[in-house]
Amino acid sequence: MKIIKSINEMQRTAFEVREKNERIGFVATMGALHKGHLSLVDIVKKGADVIIISIFVNPKQFGTSEVSPQEDYERYPRDVEQDIKILEDKKVDIVFIPDTYEMYPEGHLSYVNVQELGEVLCGKSRPGHFKGVCTVLVKLFNIVKPDITIFGEKDMQQAIIVKKMVEDLNFDIEVITGPTIRENDGLAISSRNIYLSAQQRKDVPILYKSLVIAKEMIEKGERDSTVVIEKIRSLIEKKDAKIDYIDIVDKKDLTPAKSIKGDVLIALAVYFGSTRLIDNIVIGVNP
Amino acid sequence: MKIIKSINEMQRTAFEVREKNERIGFVATMGALHKGHLSLVDIVKKGADVIIISIFVNPKQFGTSEVSPQEDYERYPRDVEQDIKILEDKKVDIVFIPDTYEMYPEGHLSYVNVQELGEVLCGKSRPGHFKGVCTVLVKLFNIVKPDITIFGEKDMQQAIIVKKMVEDLNFDIEVITGPTIRENDGLAISSRNIYLSAQQRKDVPILYKSLVIAKEMIEKGERDSTVVIEKIRSLIEKKDAKIDYIDIVDKKDLTPAKSIKGDVLIALAVYFGSTRLIDNIVIGVNP
Repeated sequence: MKIIKSINEMQRTAFEVREKNERIGFVATMGALHKGHLSLVDIVKKGADVIIISIFVNPKQFGTSEVSPQEDYERYPRDVEQDIKILEDKKVDIVFIPDTYEMYPEGHLSYVNVQELGEVLCGKSRPGHFKGVCTVLVKLFNIVKPDITIFGEKDMQQAIIVKKMVEDLNFDIEVITGPTIRENDGLAISSRNIYLSAQQRKDVPILYKSLVIAKEMIEKGERDSTVVIEKIRSLIEKKDAKIDYIDIVDKKDLTPAKSIKGDVLIALAVYFGSTRLIDNIVIGVNP
Repeated sequence: MKIIKSINEMQRTAFEVREKNERIGFVATMGALHKGHLSLVDIVKKGADVIIISIFVNPKQFGTSEVSPQEDYERYPRDVEQDIKILEDKKVDIVFIPDTYEMYPEGHLSYVNVQELGEVLCGKSRPGHFKGVCTVLVKLFNIVKPDITIFGEKDMQQAIIVKKMVEDLNFDIEVITGPTIRENDGLAISSRNIYLSAQQRKDVPILYKSLVIAKEMIEKGERDSTVVIEKIRSLIEKKDAKIDYIDIVDKKDLTPAKSIKGDVLIALAVYFGSTRLIDNIVIGVNP
């Protein structure tokens, strides 16, 4: 496994791979790798010859907001040595670990934004978050030159935004998604789960549980989003938790779905202490 | 000469050219081709094997502003047949003429912006203009896949912004510039010059003339930008013209240069009737 730290070297290497007509599969990560990331590697491997994983904690996608005046960029978990071991075992071809100052030298001014899609759900409580995500991904796409890239459905809004950006800006990259990987009790695996106290860890499975209950309500015929959202809210509020948002939106354009029809996304973000967890479920309702 | 209209075909063709290890040289234009464009083709030819010219009047870079409530997208000169003839004579390899609805299908949401640099000079009087320019260029770069591209120094701010964007977003494209091409009386050649009445056509050489006089003042020792700007203003105001802006800025970051030192850009935009013309000059002052 090759470890590349310089942007130039990564760009040159990607160029050489493509010259050999080999397909590059790419997974962008912020490190602190877990089963969720590895499942994405497994999926993307099927569509590519050379697998490149980036590890870069992108400062531009952390921000300050009213809800969370100091987001967790500094304390975001980092363990590059462990990550490298994991990726070696996984037989990844190249790990790209760029330097923050090379990625964002002083005077960086260029940003990419997907309007509207980036302003709802997580974008509402984390202003600038998706602008940071889109900007770093355009950079990484230009450096790594993937033929195919994959995003986890745990961050469904991110996956939808990236697909839209790739389409709008004519990157010829195939964007696919991989299902959310969960612990046995339903908790979506996330690098941020390590922040949870023992009690919080006992409480957090309510997120997925409430989504499953919502799904059952809809399957039994409920079509009023307000009723479903209130049910989820009442279940979560039984725990020591602070709800950031619970929303039901059209999966296509993320606009609010007052009544439930077609493919809807039920998405939520909840604080347990200062740890903000997200989860979601997609439900298809045939008319 | 190959004429390509579909984005997919252009992308596939560019891919094939690059597979043969041939360098793609690219000039993005809005058509209505003149000597200025052709001089760019001549320059870029020296650094490339295959020359691709795009003709696309980009609606996103026209806007509405206080100064010009209705910019000239609809009336912008278009003569694709004539353009094609000119490019055939010029032995260009490929002309890419995309369709507006394929470039911006309904629901386009993704934009690229170079903050600060895009908010001064022309960006101040044409809000959103450079965001439109950057967005269409990212699209064209992803479709045409150039190794080298060239921009005219008549639009110096645009050239500076594109260079910054390409660097910030890690496109591995060489961006070069070509000098402003002028009529014998100094008027910078522009597609918009055809809008001028006979009297206006007699008046407009004052733009370049005043820039040359400014240059002479600086060469003789003047270092106060205000004095130089006032001189230019007084010269232009003798004509039937409305000044949009006259600014002297640091060429590097486009910040105002109160006193003149290093490389400065003197840039202006002036209305003759409803026709807005721009011009500029770069002056290097050694300390």
